Amino acid sequence: MTAVPLDVALTLIPIGRIRVDDDAPRIEVASRFREGLRGLDGFSHVQVLWWFDRDSTRAEAPLEVIEPYPGVESIGVFATRSPERPDPIALSTCGIVDVDPARGRVTVHHIDSWDGSYVLDLKPYTPSLDRVQTPTVPPWCAGWPLSLEASAHFDWSRVFAGE
Amino acid sequence: MTAVPLDVALTLIPIGRIRVDDDAPRIEVASRFREGLRGLDGFSHVQVLWWFDRDSTRAEAPLEVIEPYPGVESIGVFATRSPERPDPIALSTCGIVDVDPARGRVTVHHIDSWDGSYVLDLKPYTPSLDRVQTPTVPPWCAGWPLSLEASAHFDWSRVFAGE
Repeated sequence: MTAVPLDVALTLIPIGRIRVDDDAPRIEVASRFREGLRGLDGFSHVQVLWWFDRDSTRAEAPLEVIEPYPGVESIGVFATRSPERPDPIALSTCGIVDVDPARGRVTVHHIDSWDGSYVLDLKPYTPSLDRVQTPTVPPWCAGWPLSLEASAHFDWSRVFAGE
Repeated sequence: MTAVPLDVALTLIPIGRIRVDDDAPRIEVASRFREGLRGLDGFSHVQVLWWFDRDSTRAEAPLEVIEPYPGVESIGVFATRSPERPDPIALSTCGIVDVDPARGRVTVHHIDSWDGSYVLDLKPYTPSLDRVQTPTVPPWCAGWPLSLEASAHFDWSRVFAGE
């Protein structure tokens, strides 16, 4: 097998922050990056890559997630969406409400994030790359909704109650 | 508007590399992270977050992409999948052929990457989070396939020829 030399550090800088306060959920992009938003309003959805923590927890992140859901004793972190990951990058697909490049603001329908989280990148949701027509999943999440739209109307408390 | 203080550097470490050589396309995960792969084989697809460059080009990345496709004069980088981005993170959704945690290998049907690219994270493709049932896109890419499966059989040379 090929050797995998990986002793390198890769550095990122935030391009903005996620806001989930009393106002509409949104991404606030720093002024120097706002020009990059032009044209995003043609898409219905945006993929938000964001930082899953204020500090870097990657060195200590466990590779095994214990009882992430009822019925799952333990599973590898790369088979979960756990925030405690070697590289703590989150990926959230969001419905776009409005894009305002001048103010550096992307208003979204919903984003499951902490207020103030750093944003690393925004990508247009591109069906030919991002939309799997018929994905399959393990039995422990087979009852979950089959799309982002269906998730919005789903009672997630039932999943965590083990129903 | 809320101030957005962002003068911070976030550091990542590669968890492995992408291999697209003469053998099957695959992710090779470094030994210290292999335990994290357990359970990924229950999913049909994996999202691969990888580094879009060997060096960090983020400081110089243009915010405007000129003529990315026929019929598009220029567009903001966050409305494209251009590799030249402020934070050069790539996102590829891949069909899983095989997961071998002991060898640290995830074989995939296809990944559009350079050989040797650093892998940052692997996430299970989760329909309730990642699958948009009815996305909409701008006119310039309205003729593209509506799913990853359809893309595999699409003649992409027609897009770049402006047909």
